[in-house]
Amino acid sequence: MKFTIKRDLLITAVQDVMKAISARPVIPILSGMKIEASIHGITLTGSDSDISIESFIPSEENGNVNVENIEPGIIVLQARYFPDIVRKLPQDTVDFIVEENYQVKISSGKSEFTLVGQNAEEYPHLPRLEAETSFEMPIPLFKNMIKQTVFAVSTMETRPILTGVNIKLENNELTFTATDSHRLAMRKTAIEAAEVEFHNVVVPGKSLNELNKILDDTEETVEINVTNNQILFRTKHLSFLSRLLDGNYPETSRLIPEERKTRIAVNTKELLNTIDRASLLAREERNNVVKLTTQGSSIVEITSNSPEVGNVHEEIVVETIEGEELKISFSSKYMMDALKSMEYDEVIIDFTGAMRPFVIIPKEDDSILQLILPVRTY
Amino acid sequence: MKFTIKRDLLITAVQDVMKAISARPVIPILSGMKIEASIHGITLTGSDSDISIESFIPSEENGNVNVENIEPGIIVLQARYFPDIVRKLPQDTVDFIVEENYQVKISSGKSEFTLVGQNAEEYPHLPRLEAETSFEMPIPLFKNMIKQTVFAVSTMETRPILTGVNIKLENNELTFTATDSHRLAMRKTAIEAAEVEFHNVVVPGKSLNELNKILDDTEETVEINVTNNQILFRTKHLSFLSRLLDGNYPETSRLIPEERKTRIAVNTKELLNTIDRASLLAREERNNVVKLTTQGSSIVEITSNSPEVGNVHEEIVVETIEGEELKISFSSKYMMDALKSMEYDEVIIDFTGAMRPFVIIPKEDDSILQLILPVRTY
Repeated sequence: MKFTIKRDLLITAVQDVMKAISARPVIPILSGMKIEASIHGITLTGSDSDISIESFIPSEENGNVNVENIEPGIIVLQARYFPDIVRKLPQDTVDFIVEENYQVKISSGKSEFTLVGQNAEEYPHLPRLEAETSFEMPIPLFKNMIKQTVFAVSTMETRPILTGVNIKLENNELTFTATDSHRLAMRKTAIEAAEVEFHNVVVPGKSLNELNKILDDTEETVEINVTNNQILFRTKHLSFLSRLLDGNYPETSRLIPEERKTRIAVNTKELLNTIDRASLLAREERNNVVKLTTQGSSIVEITSNSPEVGNVHEEIVVETIEGEELKISFSSKYMMDALKSMEYDEVIIDFTGAMRPFVIIPKEDDSILQLILPVRTY
Repeated sequence: MKFTIKRDLLITAVQDVMKAISARPVIPILSGMKIEASIHGITLTGSDSDISIESFIPSEENGNVNVENIEPGIIVLQARYFPDIVRKLPQDTVDFIVEENYQVKISSGKSEFTLVGQNAEEYPHLPRLEAETSFEMPIPLFKNMIKQTVFAVSTMETRPILTGVNIKLENNELTFTATDSHRLAMRKTAIEAAEVEFHNVVVPGKSLNELNKILDDTEETVEINVTNNQILFRTKHLSFLSRLLDGNYPETSRLIPEERKTRIAVNTKELLNTIDRASLLAREERNNVVKLTTQGSSIVEITSNSPEVGNVHEEIVVETIEGEELKISFSSKYMMDALKSMEYDEVIIDFTGAMRPFVIIPKEDDSILQLILPVRTY
């Protein structure tokens, strides 16, 4: 087995695949990276118990030669040192040769590394997904949907199903939902997916965070394939396979209040910055609570009080306040997470009293919804 | 007490002074920052047991007004929240007012913080240095001298005197020396200091690292004042006071070999990158040892071997090799630290055998000297 490859392409592929490789894997060989050379190109594979990532570097692409001198073969290499080696090699191309006893020689210019490899037959076979249910969507939209929901997953293992994002596709509408039972984030979009439907797919938040990091905005679409217990995300050069969480995702639609008693329309960034400042003194306490009070028809007061340290007070002129007067306390962190996900300059916040969940949506778009439970402060 | 100040100046001054404030100080009030307003300007002070930093913001400077509406006074403020508050305030100016019971009101635009302050009479008096021995030097040169030596101080408390940098001024020559007994870094420069002389001044490495971070390259000179047990660094806006280490700094000049058996002249960056690559596989082992072998009159081979993982091998074409053939092993970390301090494209390395310390100096400048003890590998 041997090949000569462009170093910059190898660097990117190795970094992507490393995201699936654990320093302390369940099976020792999974601390390695599988490298396969065929005449079509080089495939790198990494895996832990939750996710598997495969990156493919084609021999030729758009008339450019990426990989040359290929003798097909397959080997597993200790992943720990590989990224730094590839990154620090002196020249633009890297020669990769497997010699006797799985010795791997990696050289570039006058620099030559000899690494101890392993027989790839010991590497577990990754499941090949037969696309039962598949659809495509633009990568930038997909990444946005992850960012707008994944922060709200639970980090507690008491209800494992809540550590994932529920992905639902019904009536050509794709919905991402996440909740940790104190707040809920939801994002919808229309998908042309013919006859595909599913509703209880729950992807671990950790998988989506890793996927979000490695998905390349310059590629156009991602193909999503769902089976009973796994989900495969595929782009031109990348396959990302994640297990799904077992269990039934709770029915969340009834959490969203149907009535409202107070509505505030406000500039997103101004409210975000004010809450950020108000949270400064409260940052040690677990809930980071701030209080919002309406004053008349255009002023909202944000306050926070930390007996030992001091207090903070700020007024914002908002666009409108409709309905009942309101005093409500909530976690500044949840509010900031929600406002950061909005993508629009103006938001609407609908309250149904100081003790009921409230809802934040962009003024000009109802495809993003954030819900937050208030905090009792008396 | 009150004043109105430009926020950007306050941000910088607060950040500088924070470097002296410990989260767990010996005396509780030292977790605070002292703020003093006079008609001339605002002085911020922070201190722990080792260093004290004072930053002065003049009311007027170069015809610009920095501080207005000054009513003189003095207060101590919890330092913990202060930097974030100042950084996140919404407007370009900040109003600072001390009210009853040491309540401090900090406001900007419609944002208003009220913080619990403390009586400044409880803040310890910092020693005022009478300049027994003082000289001036350009800030960029001073910062370079710190960077070229401070990395070599000992991090072990077994010989506390070695955790500092020895600063010596004799015959109008200023010398910085640091050693952890495995390596030594030395930098000299000429100073016009009239009749000033001292030789056993040892400044904690930690103090110099902090000072290096806050010294502003755009200011011209630093004035250095030395007494028996303290050293004061003063610029136009900043006073930085550090305690000195007790004890006698060892005589280091006899460590530097006078003869040589092998001399190598080599490109600094090429050697640095080669050593960096060779150290990749050895990074876990305590000494990170690499081996250097001369081959003929122009090739140096750098190798490293890590039985479980593999080995690395690289040749460099060097400018010259003079004298005896050589095989020598040393810490890659020490070698990289030394080479990074060189500032010149070409260095000379003088060896006196595989078991003796070797010396690295720039080819065109003998004011920087780095010495490293080799490692026995058999």
